[in-house]
Amino acid sequence: MLEELKMAVYEANMELPKRNLITFTWGNVSGFDKDKGLFVIKPSGVEYDLLSPDDMVVMDLDGNKAEGKYKPSSDTPTHLELYKKYPYLGGVVHTHSKEATAWAQAGMDISCYGTTHADYFYGPIPCARALTTEEIQGEYEKNTGLVIIETFEGRNINPLYTPGVLCTNHGVFTWGKDAHEAVHNAVVVEEVAYMATRSRIINPAVVPAPQNIQDKHFFRKHGENAYYGQN
Amino acid sequence: MLEELKMAVYEANMELPKRNLITFTWGNVSGFDKDKGLFVIKPSGVEYDLLSPDDMVVMDLDGNKAEGKYKPSSDTPTHLELYKKYPYLGGVVHTHSKEATAWAQAGMDISCYGTTHADYFYGPIPCARALTTEEIQGEYEKNTGLVIIETFEGRNINPLYTPGVLCTNHGVFTWGKDAHEAVHNAVVVEEVAYMATRSRIINPAVVPAPQNIQDKHFFRKHGENAYYGQN
Amino acid sequence: MLEELKMAVYEANMELPKRNLITFTWGNVSGFDKDKGLFVIKPSGVEYDLLSPDDMVVMDLDGNKAEGKYKPSSDTPTHLELYKKYPYLGGVVHTHSKEATAWAQAGMDISCYGTTHADYFYGPIPCARALTTEEIQGEYEKNTGLVIIETFEGRNINPLYTPGVLCTNHGVFTWGKDAHEAVHNAVVVEEVAYMATRSRIINPAVVPAPQNIQDKHFFRKHGENAYYGQN
Amino acid sequence: MLEELKMAVYEANMELPKRNLITFTWGNVSGFDKDKGLFVIKPSGVEYDLLSPDDMVVMDLDGNKAEGKYKPSSDTPTHLELYKKYPYLGGVVHTHSKEATAWAQAGMDISCYGTTHADYFYGPIPCARALTTEEIQGEYEKNTGLVIIETFEGRNINPLYTPGVLCTNHGVFTWGKDAHEAVHNAVVVEEVAYMATRSRIINPAVVPAPQNIQDKHFFRKHGENAYYGQN
Repeated sequence: MLEELKMAVYEANMELPKRNLITFTWGNVSGFDKDKGLFVIKPSGVEYDLLSPDDMVVMDLDGNKAEGKYKPSSDTPTHLELYKKYPYLGGVVHTHSKEATAWAQAGMDISCYGTTHADYFYGPIPCARALTTEEIQGEYEKNTGLVIIETFEGRNINPLYTPGVLCTNHGVFTWGKDAHEAVHNAVVVEEVAYMATRSRIINPAVVPAPQNIQDKHFFRKHGENAYYGQN
Repeated sequence: MLEELKMAVYEANMELPKRNLITFTWGNVSGFDKDKGLFVIKPSGVEYDLLSPDDMVVMDLDGNKAEGKYKPSSDTPTHLELYKKYPYLGGVVHTHSKEATAWAQAGMDISCYGTTHADYFYGPIPCARALTTEEIQGEYEKNTGLVIIETFEGRNINPLYTPGVLCTNHGVFTWGKDAHEAVHNAVVVEEVAYMATRSRIINPAVVPAPQNIQDKHFFRKHGENAYYGQN
Repeated sequence: MLEELKMAVYEANMELPKRNLITFTWGNVSGFDKDKGLFVIKPSGVEYDLLSPDDMVVMDLDGNKAEGKYKPSSDTPTHLELYKKYPYLGGVVHTHSKEATAWAQAGMDISCYGTTHADYFYGPIPCARALTTEEIQGEYEKNTGLVIIETFEGRNINPLYTPGVLCTNHGVFTWGKDAHEAVHNAVVVEEVAYMATRSRIINPAVVPAPQNIQDKHFFRKHGENAYYGQN
Repeated sequence: MLEELKMAVYEANMELPKRNLITFTWGNVSGFDKDKGLFVIKPSGVEYDLLSPDDMVVMDLDGNKAEGKYKPSSDTPTHLELYKKYPYLGGVVHTHSKEATAWAQAGMDISCYGTTHADYFYGPIPCARALTTEEIQGEYEKNTGLVIIETFEGRNINPLYTPGVLCTNHGVFTWGKDAHEAVHNAVVVEEVAYMATRSRIINPAVVPAPQNIQDKHFFRKHGENAYYGQN
């Protein structure tokens, strides 16, 4: 079932090591079929060299395995909560990519310092709060998803305009209209994080880019007045 | 038309990912034929893997497409202003290369801290001011070019002696006698930016190299008394 | 003798340059056969390009060579002390990997700033004290091992929960259930060190991750309640 | 003439891009035949892709070209002064390698923070003073050599124990018993510089490694009591 989606999710997962977003098995990509209410995700802890499209696991939104010989990624309940709340997302990625995770460890939003960021993310990339002991000792991965949602709802952020988040002391989640775009956004977060750290070294008093240039670049690529690219 | 220039511009564009100056499609190179008053530029948002010399777009200095099946790069009006003002430029490059863009985000000139810089750039690599809201909401890419020109004219900088600029909160433009040399200078800016950031970490009180050594190295490679290389 | 272990130790050594953990010959891996009381280690100062499984040296726990045409690594007595004290270790690695060695040179533990660290190391990666002049001028490499042991015993650290250590002004030792896992942990230390340095740049007031999240992640992968992976 | 040396110098030059020590043509290697009083050096500004062993230039210690179709490296007079003063050197390298050049731009010695450094360099890697305007406007490259020599003589440093130097606002020179070893030492300087910068980030109050460990590691690899490697 969902052979095409499994192939797309497999390929998106294979992009993670190729793009230097992960070491070993520290990441996972899923893809969502909204009509069927099913998502496809990488199995837990299987080495990338050994993965094949058939190893992908199919899950429903109640957390039941619909198909697959392996256990799904341990982060599956986080993906599930995101799809349940925001069913227009077609793909979700989790990584511990180095530069962005350094910001998550620092517990700070990545401010928008320039147009590379503004081309993809409208406003800062938010850093979700740490979980409470109860949230950690309970359904940890599910609660990770709920705290991401709390962040977006509480700060009134549109997940389509800000397709990613840092989780304090942990790592990065990104998303997109499909698994491929979610990985694309994971590359962007890492790149933007790299530059933001260096901007702070160069100028410890650096401030975010003015709102006018953030608006310009974001809407040059998004929304009805977009004019970047061939469309 | 301009088959040779299209090939040269294509090859120069392909150097950008090879030299790690760009991620995805975040950059573009153009080449100018002064006699014909036409320039050749990369199409907008087309992936590098799929580019061919024939995809290059030919533009005139009024901003009309002279040939090409694609829309030109969204940054085309910036290139155009530079060729119009400085018709002796044969190539222009735009990137968001990481180390240099970190300086653009910091809103600071890259001071000349050493001979690697002085071999190519006479004096600091200037950081052009941010655009006003009017400039951004008007012809943004054209105004980006005009602000670069304002920077060089206002600070009395010779663009042949300082073949590049940072745009605040944005990225880098470089140029040269042709597209190939413009890319060469884009590599230099990135390298020089990398080292400048580290020099500031090592010695927060670092100051620019003395003028005498800047003069020596720049004119060892440029002007009538140059003696570097085989000519 | 020990052909299988020699092959495994050879392969683990070859992982060091592949994983960018070493430059030239600045590292070594050994593997221990607890039943036979013998360990296999890389020869001293032989270039990686020229190594073969047969070049591995077999040592007993009294420091006698049991087999091998070469002199063993100069760090052999350090490995030996670790196997003698902690015979349940199956592999030991020494590197001067850049990011972690920068912490060793700074003379500081790597605090646990996030889950990447907590997934593998329970608590900080300790930095063992500098050796005294007597310890240096005496049996230096043996004393390096004894000071590592002193660190773990004195700070009451379980080497199975914290599979690595920094040696002040020197480099890194890691270990595991076999040579392969010891190299895996050497990759983790380097990655964690990289991110910890950047977290400190971003937020000079960064503090370690709360104990609740450290517990959660470590025991998600270790111990009887582990649920990461396919087992 | 000197076919073997030309081949060795050619190969050593080709190591520079392979080891990421140079960008474009920003470096050069020479090798010295003490008996003949001749040295072989890379031609000036020729791209690495196009170099062949036959392109190497043979020079005598009076600065006359003994053989070669090309002009020698513009840095030739620096190499010459070093061979004239220290005829036991068999090879000299010049690079603008990034991490070390960042220290040269900062105008600071690289302190010995650990054993990676102490294994190859006894004491700090010195930073030679800036040249005066007269020295720059006169025989600049020759004076660069003389200022290096002044540094070693004035600070009573043995160039065999400290096989490299930083030149303020410029770059790096290293040397060795032959061209190959000189390149090896250029790799070491870059690696040591990388780690030293990070150690300073991690611990701004970092101090050099104690003398006892510096002595131990340097003399473990050098001098009559060396015991590292197979000899």
